[in-house]
Amino acid sequence: MVKLTIPPKEILYPVPVVLVSIFDRKNKRTNAITIAWCGIVASIPPQISISIRPSRYSHKLITREKSFVVNVPSADILKKTDLCGVVSGKDIDKFKLCSFTSAPASKVSASLIRECPVNIECKLKKTVKLGSHDMFIGEVLAVHIDNDILGPDGAIDYAKANPVVFNGGGYWSIGDKLGSYGFSKK
Amino acid sequence: MVKLTIPPKEILYPVPVVLVSIFDRKNKRTNAITIAWCGIVASIPPQISISIRPSRYSHKLITREKSFVVNVPSADILKKTDLCGVVSGKDIDKFKLCSFTSAPASKVSASLIRECPVNIECKLKKTVKLGSHDMFIGEVLAVHIDNDILGPDGAIDYAKANPVVFNGGGYWSIGDKLGSYGFSKK
Repeated sequence: MVKLTIPPKEILYPVPVVLVSIFDRKNKRTNAITIAWCGIVASIPPQISISIRPSRYSHKLITREKSFVVNVPSADILKKTDLCGVVSGKDIDKFKLCSFTSAPASKVSASLIRECPVNIECKLKKTVKLGSHDMFIGEVLAVHIDNDILGPDGAIDYAKANPVVFNGGGYWSIGDKLGSYGFSKK
Repeated sequence: MVKLTIPPKEILYPVPVVLVSIFDRKNKRTNAITIAWCGIVASIPPQISISIRPSRYSHKLITREKSFVVNVPSADILKKTDLCGVVSGKDIDKFKLCSFTSAPASKVSASLIRECPVNIECKLKKTVKLGSHDMFIGEVLAVHIDNDILGPDGAIDYAKANPVVFNGGGYWSIGDKLGSYGFSKK
């Protein structure tokens, strides 16, 4: 097995694709931005990080509003998800552009995107400046899940949730379940 | 569409599954730990975060060594990948346990896991204490890719890379390519 060595690059895969919604107080509407530079960073209290370039409109919104919602899309709305990553919410109402249905959050100012089967309300806990991006660490305050994606055991059925995976610039669906955490010891 | 509201939980999906290798100076060997609480956090300079509980042996190693390698496994070695997440490297040589082949890194002290098609060498840039986990932010110093997973264009063919996705405690394969970044505007 021969290995090719390439210069430093943020090459980790697969990573999530989420729609982060943030309230835009000036325009009195909620904006949405697509983020793949995100992940779970702690369990107690539950925390998620999202990284955004300082030049993005959502960066200003989140710095001012100090809260956001991480909406996890399904592959059904991939085209709209991609679109929210390539246009700016400064002059465009992305909820209108994408025909997203807004639903009120319970703890934060941003609206939930109803079409996303999972919505995670977060309050900004910490901002870490990293260069090209600032990392916003959000503490999870509330979680909403579509009944439609729950299995008979009450847990999320990921085949129904149909998430999108981001691999080096491309969007992929998920395939088959291969095992559960700890299966190697059983 | 009715939504179920549940208490705060680190419910984001899909997330990556990686094997992080760190040099164990005392035992003169490299240890490996499975991590799903990880992600890309910045592009320039390229940075990756991994979160580890302070009780884990690898937490001590990384704090001392200040560098690590993020090895991205394929589904072919999922059972070994899971095993590295449920046993401790304090008393066990996980490279031996899993029959991993070690290869020297170019910039850091830890060995690469040769069976992983992508290896990302990182130096520890920052540690952020978050509660249950500490987040280690690593700056990418070098990247190694198996020639076997490259497509005719020289880029990674993710069908060949065959990565593992982690969804709420379960491991899944990837499915089909659905599009590329920016496809909604074309």
